[in-house]
Amino acid sequence: MKTNLDRIKRDIEELSKFNATPGQGLTRFSLTAEDKGAREYIRNELLKLCLNVYEDPAGSIFGRRSGSDDNLPVIMIGSHFDSVKNGGNFDGPAGIVMALEIMRCLEENNVKTKYPIEFVGMIEEEGGRFGSGVFGSRAMAGAVSIDQLHSNKDEASISMAKALRDFGFNPEAIGNAKRNPKDIKAFIELHIEQGPILESNNKDIGIVDFIVGINEFKVILKGRPDHAGTTPMHMRSDALSTASKVICKIDNYAKDTGEGTVATVGILNIKPGAANIVPGEVVFTVDIRSKNSDCINEVKNNIVEALNTETVASGVEVEIIEMLDVSPVKMSEEIIKSLEENSQTSGFSYIKMLSGAGHDAMIMSTITDVGLVFVPSKDGRSHCPEEWTDYEDLQRGIELIYNTVLDKGEAL
Amino acid sequence: MKTNLDRIKRDIEELSKFNATPGQGLTRFSLTAEDKGAREYIRNELLKLCLNVYEDPAGSIFGRRSGSDDNLPVIMIGSHFDSVKNGGNFDGPAGIVMALEIMRCLEENNVKTKYPIEFVGMIEEEGGRFGSGVFGSRAMAGAVSIDQLHSNKDEASISMAKALRDFGFNPEAIGNAKRNPKDIKAFIELHIEQGPILESNNKDIGIVDFIVGINEFKVILKGRPDHAGTTPMHMRSDALSTASKVICKIDNYAKDTGEGTVATVGILNIKPGAANIVPGEVVFTVDIRSKNSDCINEVKNNIVEALNTETVASGVEVEIIEMLDVSPVKMSEEIIKSLEENSQTSGFSYIKMLSGAGHDAMIMSTITDVGLVFVPSKDGRSHCPEEWTDYEDLQRGIELIYNTVLDKGEAL
Repeated sequence: MKTNLDRIKRDIEELSKFNATPGQGLTRFSLTAEDKGAREYIRNELLKLCLNVYEDPAGSIFGRRSGSDDNLPVIMIGSHFDSVKNGGNFDGPAGIVMALEIMRCLEENNVKTKYPIEFVGMIEEEGGRFGSGVFGSRAMAGAVSIDQLHSNKDEASISMAKALRDFGFNPEAIGNAKRNPKDIKAFIELHIEQGPILESNNKDIGIVDFIVGINEFKVILKGRPDHAGTTPMHMRSDALSTASKVICKIDNYAKDTGEGTVATVGILNIKPGAANIVPGEVVFTVDIRSKNSDCINEVKNNIVEALNTETVASGVEVEIIEMLDVSPVKMSEEIIKSLEENSQTSGFSYIKMLSGAGHDAMIMSTITDVGLVFVPSKDGRSHCPEEWTDYEDLQRGIELIYNTVLDKGEAL
Repeated sequence: MKTNLDRIKRDIEELSKFNATPGQGLTRFSLTAEDKGAREYIRNELLKLCLNVYEDPAGSIFGRRSGSDDNLPVIMIGSHFDSVKNGGNFDGPAGIVMALEIMRCLEENNVKTKYPIEFVGMIEEEGGRFGSGVFGSRAMAGAVSIDQLHSNKDEASISMAKALRDFGFNPEAIGNAKRNPKDIKAFIELHIEQGPILESNNKDIGIVDFIVGINEFKVILKGRPDHAGTTPMHMRSDALSTASKVICKIDNYAKDTGEGTVATVGILNIKPGAANIVPGEVVFTVDIRSKNSDCINEVKNNIVEALNTETVASGVEVEIIEMLDVSPVKMSEEIIKSLEENSQTSGFSYIKMLSGAGHDAMIMSTITDVGLVFVPSKDGRSHCPEEWTDYEDLQRGIELIYNTVLDKGEAL
């Protein structure tokens, strides 16, 4: 191996320390004290390598290593450094550590490449704090407006615009985060699988050929917050009762559609939220995923129809707000081929597979050729404290991308 | 009128200022800065009248006015001074102001009574902060243990024991809050109706003859917090999906049982609570009320049966924790008779009615004879910022209880 297992282990362990919920998994929301700590760690590691280190107005971190022809587009590598609430140490950081370690290996081996190589550490991929995911890559794709920064708010009603400004970024300049597709030759991400497939097939590496499409929307139901004792059942407009009559059907909508389509209600908040008050307002999210856009639309249509039926029956008002709509995307054939060849050369076992999770790679595919490598997740678990990838597995994924970067960057 | 409308209005307005959510209704949780403010206001008003002012170890406030024979049991009057989250200015305070104003009228008219008269301002009736209601009266009835003070916790995991201690009370002495039934001749409470009946019948006064029974329990569902994209539908243990399949049936369980039985899920919290994570844990409350205990049991049994069926199907674990179980209670015939006679004498229109809401009167009925007077709620609304009772309506209720206290206390 050309990569260094000890450094990989140390990076993961050090990044894990920037955590708002020690003992209850990793929570590192964007633009918090934990973000700041991880950001400083990453910046310092990049600065040690004498890279051109900078941050864009969205808050993502970059470290550029010149190529022999610095006018050529970059090979970009990386992932995100935020986490979900009470998640694990690998979702995001695995790809950050991949890119840090490759940058170190290039430097210590005095590798010269024709194309510049660029590290990226992306912000708010999970949408854990502001509710709107793959944010860093969307900003690079030019798909974020200043209006969105004002309207995306955390639970304390702090807008992303304010949080960025308080962190020293200029949200008004968000347009400058957009990257010209001509300036990026390829983007390669490493991520944990977050599912049970590699482990159950006893494979080292998953080479992703397709990422599922995702439609995420928010449903706001407004009824009337009456007293739970003095209001007869027939006089209520109960937002939670109405919500439950729709949510209970969603499992079957997804199953009936087939093609591995999944649908999830992951957030549900009630107002006012007291045992003796009929819920006056319920807000919940729906996340639908499939490799087939038609399946996503079918599930969504069924949910909207059920919402209309139930709200008419209960006198509750309904509003639907689109949060995220991404079509299924195909990874670059050329990068897949290179990853396959390098896996074979290194003796790594691999399968080509579908990604059921969205990733920054999905957004990056709108502006450049993209490759996505999975490493195994123990018991298929992720987004929980038990999330784990053996360091040797992680190293194999990093080694594979290192060799592929040498190919694609045309090492001299 | 012997009572003073200006003072009644001033009391309501002054108490409304101790509010954690100005502009969004009244929020005055127990043992907070807002509690402290209201507590000081009440204590000061009582001290002006040279009463024997004290607080019990549960944190309720008392002001005792001697009778000609101070060994006789007291006539106790009052209500609670806490509120729900984002509630109104009258639920609780209306009865506090009733008792303050009656104490003032007794003093300024130099009334001597045979029986002592005692003001009570009760704590944590709503259970808004610690989730377990009618706390002050339960402590007086001897139904609170030190263990419960440790296990009742707020959202920040602060136990009631700690909160009481931080406020200067001694939770270990909670047993001393218990009142000897021999020492209380009667308890009379005034409360807003919190429903539409008095207003729609154009009546001044509701004389309650029955308070519904209440069963409140908490349901804890534990599934597995998997990734919303990588976990196929058939491999999930989704706590929210399971909960929704039960909650959607509760409306009909209550309706089918009849006799005005109501059932409400007012709190529902999800962990971890992210759009892209299958809910691993859901905790929700169920509140069932009826004047008939059999109806309450029938609804509860149906819910438990549905929980068992759905959790077996989804592989989710279920735990049920009893929060509150109070039988339907009858008010004192003798006090009802006195309230009716005094209404007639004063020319107040009234009806005898059922209380769909639980009140401290319900708990007090386990240790003494109890009377409960309702005054109209505008549009039947309560537990919301729009909660309103006309001051003239409130004054009529106070006047009625004043006259009844003169009867029962045997004014000399």
